[in-house]
Amino acid sequence: MEYYSKEIGRLIGELSTLPGIGSKSAQRLAFHLLNLPKDEVNKLAETIVSARENVHYCKECFTLTDQDICPICANPNRSKKTIMVVEDTRDLAAYEKTGKYEGVYHVLHGAISPMQGIGPGDIRLKELIQRLQKEDTEEVIIATNSSLEGETTAMYISKLLKPSGIRVSRIASGVPVGGDLENIDEVTLLRALEGRTDL
Amino acid sequence: MEYYSKEIGRLIGELSTLPGIGSKSAQRLAFHLLNLPKDEVNKLAETIVSARENVHYCKECFTLTDQDICPICANPNRSKKTIMVVEDTRDLAAYEKTGKYEGVYHVLHGAISPMQGIGPGDIRLKELIQRLQKEDTEEVIIATNSSLEGETTAMYISKLLKPSGIRVSRIASGVPVGGDLENIDEVTLLRALEGRTDL
Repeated sequence: MEYYSKEIGRLIGELSTLPGIGSKSAQRLAFHLLNLPKDEVNKLAETIVSARENVHYCKECFTLTDQDICPICANPNRSKKTIMVVEDTRDLAAYEKTGKYEGVYHVLHGAISPMQGIGPGDIRLKELIQRLQKEDTEEVIIATNSSLEGETTAMYISKLLKPSGIRVSRIASGVPVGGDLENIDEVTLLRALEGRTDL
Repeated sequence: MEYYSKEIGRLIGELSTLPGIGSKSAQRLAFHLLNLPKDEVNKLAETIVSARENVHYCKECFTLTDQDICPICANPNRSKKTIMVVEDTRDLAAYEKTGKYEGVYHVLHGAISPMQGIGPGDIRLKELIQRLQKEDTEEVIIATNSSLEGETTAMYISKLLKPSGIRVSRIASGVPVGGDLENIDEVTLLRALEGRTDL
């Protein structure tokens, strides 16, 4: 980056460490920031620092929140009898957008991946078990991703919870709504076939 | 963004105002930042603020730099007799990467675009003229982009400088080296034909 002066090079370098930002995007971002009014740049920097400072895990469900207990766990209208287990806060948000789920969540912050050396102790699984021991849960819905890691995690949790007698379910795999069959991979098509329901 | 708590929503909102960052990328970036160690986040924020604070235009060529006079203008080995006119600092960096250009630059910070209401007064053209009046320039190489705006700007500058007797040239348009003819648009092919040179 010697084509740019030191401060610019440092800015481009920092930005290109962010996920999905390659060296070209980092340059574009850097020059965008350098051309913004100073107070907008300061506001952006403050927002970043303040979010990192004030956002932490919800004490109950481990989603990221700026409160002690997240608004979902704190909402008396949400049923604590159903816990949906997701891999991260974005997955929680995806289900919240449907507006139809009335239970609470548990965010694992990852999935079991022997390939990457992530075991059951590296995700928030112990915390789920502790929660189930304290609370009067009727159903645990496992909504981990439909990837190898997500499926492994789902399997592991279901075996772990079997002895407790709590109902454990898994969200359905199949053809996405509006999906064109010809563009869908074989594994998904087979899953959709296995999971067929009577009409 | 009511699916996320306030601070997270604000962070995602700020990030999605950046160029090339849509709402999905902003979410991914936000959660990446929230999971980084605090000191790394602070360093990123400081780098952004410091770059914006300390980077300004070079007093001679108007490139972005953290010094009064940029390293290129300050380099006694660079010939001030040749000035390459570019649209922005990234274009300058692109030519610097070739390592073969030994003159200096002039950065316009934009191009004339009647469609977007950008006239000759909105780019650093006056400053180029002032520079030419003070300095002993022999050639102005116009290296604005090969877009409608870039061509318009090139035309405008060449007409403006004609009476001064300074040689004004334009970088060649044509087939990129390694480019496959069949994938190249007609306008470029015609340009390459018009600009053919004897072998």
